[in-house]
Amino acid sequence: MIIIGIDPGYAIVGIGVIEYTGNKFRPIEYNAITTHAAMSTSLRLKKIYEEINMYLDKYNPDAVAIEELFFNTNAKTAIAVAQARGVLVVSVTNRNIPIYEYTPLQIKQAVTGYGRADKQQIQQMVKLLLNLRQIPRPDDAADALAVAICHAHSSGINDRLGTNRL
Amino acid sequence: MIIIGIDPGYAIVGIGVIEYTGNKFRPIEYNAITTHAAMSTSLRLKKIYEEINMYLDKYNPDAVAIEELFFNTNAKTAIAVAQARGVLVVSVTNRNIPIYEYTPLQIKQAVTGYGRADKQQIQQMVKLLLNLRQIPRPDDAADALAVAICHAHSSGINDRLGTNRL
Repeated sequence: MIIIGIDPGYAIVGIGVIEYTGNKFRPIEYNAITTHAAMSTSLRLKKIYEEINMYLDKYNPDAVAIEELFFNTNAKTAIAVAQARGVLVVSVTNRNIPIYEYTPLQIKQAVTGYGRADKQQIQQMVKLLLNLRQIPRPDDAADALAVAICHAHSSGINDRLGTNRL
Repeated sequence: MIIIGIDPGYAIVGIGVIEYTGNKFRPIEYNAITTHAAMSTSLRLKKIYEEINMYLDKYNPDAVAIEELFFNTNAKTAIAVAQARGVLVVSVTNRNIPIYEYTPLQIKQAVTGYGRADKQQIQQMVKLLLNLRQIPRPDDAADALAVAICHAHSSGINDRLGTNRL
């Protein structure tokens, strides 16, 4: 099963592609879509749309997992990130690929077994589980891999109960 | 010049299509895209994507104008509306149609000449300017027509200064 994990953002969207077969993980690609603050909002959203479509074309994933957005104290940032997240979700859904969302707590628990794990502990576990030589960079790519791993661990339950389906 | 005005929303997106030629307005269509709360988020966003594309196909507008989002005290609603707005903006931008955004204050001033106009005053002016027999319903469609009118009044300045371009 090919899973694309997405860490939603506006200036930077983390992308993590993994294969999960028979309880084994294989990292395929991790990267980030970036948009420059000098670009207009509409062109930044268009770039995100085009680049997520490139990943969907390239890997034709069985599922996509994306982190849930929570209220941010900076409303302007929250609106910008939510707009980008809408673009990401619709790109996936236009292809009838199932998309799931997970809270940061669910991701922490799925990856480390511990809901209060810090960023470093999560990144270490991502490195271990995917047998990488180094912690993935940028952080957004590591976060995207973590949400993909979270989905892999949860997908049996999701398929039965329909939970986390976005 | 054909202008589509959009009042962004998640459960209801107002759509207002007008023609503006030689200082004269002609209403073409006003309506709303609705999505039902029983649908999943991903399918609601997909429906918005598909229906805005139908309007863009049908009218091939010269410009699209959309209301700017402001911070909402309900963060969950703000995120949902912002996600939908991202879908709307990218649908327009994918076709290289220029898109502009206006604040509620700019819309009020452009439509009524008065920044503190209330909803009823705006709707009355929309009815008058477009020579409609009744105030457009739903409210979201009237708001969408107001943002289209605002763009028509502002488009000369926008073309020269590039202001309000999203």
